[in-house]
Amino acid sequence: MKGPDPTISLDQLSDAESFQEPVFLRIARAISADIARGRFRPGQRLPSSRALADSLGVHRNTVLAAYQELIAEGWLVTRPSGGTFVSSDMVDTRPKAFARSAVLRTEVPGRVGFDLAPPPDRFDQPEPPKGALVFASGMPDLRLAPVDDLSRAYRRALRQNGGKLLGYGDPAGELRLRSALASMFADARGLAANESNVIVTRGSQMAIDLCAKVLFSPGDVVAVEALGYQPAWAALRASGARLVPVAVDRSGMVFDALRAVAERERLRAIYLTPHHQYPTTVSLSPGRRLQVLELAAERRIAVIEDDYDNEFHYESRPILPLASADRKGTVLYIGTLSKILAPALRVGFLVAPEPFILRAAAMRATMDRQGDRPVETAVAELIEDGAVQRHVRRMRGHYAKRREALAGALARHLGAAVRFDLPQGGMAIWVEVDSTINVEKWAENARAQGVIATTAKRFAFDGRARNFFRLGFANLNEKEIEEGVLRLKKALRV
Amino acid sequence: MKGPDPTISLDQLSDAESFQEPVFLRIARAISADIARGRFRPGQRLPSSRALADSLGVHRNTVLAAYQELIAEGWLVTRPSGGTFVSSDMVDTRPKAFARSAVLRTEVPGRVGFDLAPPPDRFDQPEPPKGALVFASGMPDLRLAPVDDLSRAYRRALRQNGGKLLGYGDPAGELRLRSALASMFADARGLAANESNVIVTRGSQMAIDLCAKVLFSPGDVVAVEALGYQPAWAALRASGARLVPVAVDRSGMVFDALRAVAERERLRAIYLTPHHQYPTTVSLSPGRRLQVLELAAERRIAVIEDDYDNEFHYESRPILPLASADRKGTVLYIGTLSKILAPALRVGFLVAPEPFILRAAAMRATMDRQGDRPVETAVAELIEDGAVQRHVRRMRGHYAKRREALAGALARHLGAAVRFDLPQGGMAIWVEVDSTINVEKWAENARAQGVIATTAKRFAFDGRARNFFRLGFANLNEKEIEEGVLRLKKALRV
Repeated sequence: MKGPDPTISLDQLSDAESFQEPVFLRIARAISADIARGRFRPGQRLPSSRALADSLGVHRNTVLAAYQELIAEGWLVTRPSGGTFVSSDMVDTRPKAFARSAVLRTEVPGRVGFDLAPPPDRFDQPEPPKGALVFASGMPDLRLAPVDDLSRAYRRALRQNGGKLLGYGDPAGELRLRSALASMFADARGLAANESNVIVTRGSQMAIDLCAKVLFSPGDVVAVEALGYQPAWAALRASGARLVPVAVDRSGMVFDALRAVAERERLRAIYLTPHHQYPTTVSLSPGRRLQVLELAAERRIAVIEDDYDNEFHYESRPILPLASADRKGTVLYIGTLSKILAPALRVGFLVAPEPFILRAAAMRATMDRQGDRPVETAVAELIEDGAVQRHVRRMRGHYAKRREALAGALARHLGAAVRFDLPQGGMAIWVEVDSTINVEKWAENARAQGVIATTAKRFAFDGRARNFFRLGFANLNEKEIEEGVLRLKKALRV
Repeated sequence: MKGPDPTISLDQLSDAESFQEPVFLRIARAISADIARGRFRPGQRLPSSRALADSLGVHRNTVLAAYQELIAEGWLVTRPSGGTFVSSDMVDTRPKAFARSAVLRTEVPGRVGFDLAPPPDRFDQPEPPKGALVFASGMPDLRLAPVDDLSRAYRRALRQNGGKLLGYGDPAGELRLRSALASMFADARGLAANESNVIVTRGSQMAIDLCAKVLFSPGDVVAVEALGYQPAWAALRASGARLVPVAVDRSGMVFDALRAVAERERLRAIYLTPHHQYPTTVSLSPGRRLQVLELAAERRIAVIEDDYDNEFHYESRPILPLASADRKGTVLYIGTLSKILAPALRVGFLVAPEPFILRAAAMRATMDRQGDRPVETAVAELIEDGAVQRHVRRMRGHYAKRREALAGALARHLGAAVRFDLPQGGMAIWVEVDSTINVEKWAENARAQGVIATTAKRFAFDGRARNFFRLGFANLNEKEIEEGVLRLKKALRV
């Protein structure tokens, strides 16, 4: 039986794009393409390596290597009787089914070949223009991050126990970090947690997501703050929960409104930010704290307490979290080191009764298996040796001054256009804009003037505009704050 | 109006556990506890600071600091007329509702105060005994990880642009890493992907999880390999999918069985490991590759291709992935650097048509917002300067020798008790155990002898035992492999 005409492959072999591949591989790909295209049939004998080498003008070893490759990949088989054949395991394919793809790199198709739901809304803000000053809503000053401490601790962690920390680990996080966090809670948050009450998460986002996944079945109802944190809502919704907004006033979530919701709906959970309400910065009043806990205990509602910037409180010590008064196991307490150290480290935590932590850890294993052990170990070391605490104290000093600077500049330069209470803590001022001014227009002009100010609309459950800005002061120094407010003033006059 | 008897707080103040707190804070906590307990009523006037200081034997400033703290926390108010009062915003609480908790650290309760589904099964293996040799099923040798390269690259990333990489970033991953990965796929995997086709994930686990979340509604059907990777199944199930097992033979997933499933069920996706089937190590035959792609294109089924250890192929170049022959956009291609660099770095990827990547990125934002930017940047640098590629070549050399060592030791020491094909690639040998031997019992004895060998049961969709081991050879050196097999031999004789 005569083999097929080997010239069929020559044009493919000279294809410019394939020149980076070794010749034997280009030959192999050309042959596999011909098999896929049906020009070689299953069971058909291939030309001898010598004949093919002659006709292609290559060394016979090159053809042998190509055949070897195709045998390894299963396209070809050798028979005991001698000779090389197309595998009879090959399916008969229609022309072009596999064609060029086997010769060259295949471009990833532009469309998907199956049905896909419409994409969800993204809540990313557009990239700020170059040189713009951003009054970021909750961003630490990364220029002051303890970069050298961190990289030294990371190197030590990598080298520890012969690279052992580079391996698989506990989905609940490194025990050493869980323990360091537990002692931090005891010192600063009135919580006697032990390691079994703590899971280390990828920032507060994953903690919220895990709570949602453990708690919710589709249709479960969650009360949220009517002005609040959209990414949290997205996580709650991703687990199928239905969200019901509850009004927020100067004492935080309005309890009467919450109770009305609880009477109307079978509430599975309440998600709130009691310490420095996001975005309005107010603290939930002590009376309401007790009421929320009582309601939760009575109706067996989970309270997801997001305490994202506990450390930055300027008037007194931080208010103790709801979790510190929880005797019934209703509070799921969430925090993060994103504001203390850096968002990109993605280290956050969830504190809860152990049965909840076990479920959260099992759920987390399905999502990303475990955390980054060297990073977690490095952070644990920084907590143990007090570097994190020193950094917090240092940043608290800076932020207190920046808060004053922003308040002063707003009062000096914007006068009657704005009104605000100096927040007791947090990283932003919630600024009411005079009702004669269109705040959205102002923000738009401000962007053109090189300053980014986030308006209330971004935080509104109903998506409606309200005459407020949330102006972060933590990521800018005092000079930048002054300049930013001057730009805001210019934008007002446009 | 006379204030309440201040002695009420004294016993609490002397509580041993509270000694670590400053005195002013202990006083504040005692008062808030009394308010919560109802011993101070809303609107009631507190004793003067002088009177209370006298009765407690502390300096008046200490009491003033305590009052200041309680005012800041909202428990107390001052009136313009003078004097300090319990806030009338306080709710009347039943006795003990807030009690000790406000004074001392509260223990996190042992139980939850709401309903909770039973915990899911965990698939963690028990911790191996100290000194045990573990034939791990897919674990690189971390002792050889490029730790210094990595820590240097990490330090450079942290310092880059004044800590800019410590901030918030793209949920799809650092552009620099996406670009480095795309060039890696072009060089080694026959895929002309660009950055918009790539999302960086937390290992392959998150890539599988994201595919599941984007694709599945509860009840959607997914075909999986009947011997396969349990953590992947857990992620698919977490999105509500129903899994249908398809038999695996020496040529990978049995296509006729898959087609039968597709005719019986409306398949939404197929999850498989075509390169080195997990756990059996076989490669999906070329004929079946074409058949799977055709079936998927025809029925609009998503193909989740998990190519977790592409680089470790010893007989020839790695077989090109299904994705390299996908013209219809049905393949979602998953890989990881866990096997190349280290599992704990949690860097994996998903390559897919751009519309799918956009949805996956939006979903990822709800889970953990983004990756670790300094780590992603460090890994990008190691790919760009060729350090990853050099490491892969080096490890491939080691693993090829270790594969030979394991095969040799098995043949020498275990003889007729085992049978196996030398795998063309991967990090493990799939070892058939003679049917007269109880493999589960053998594994149990082996553990007692200080060697861990994973049996087929762990990979079985039906959970039934089968007479096979999966013995990893990558994480042990040749001496350890020899010793491990000798221990297996001892365990056989027990």
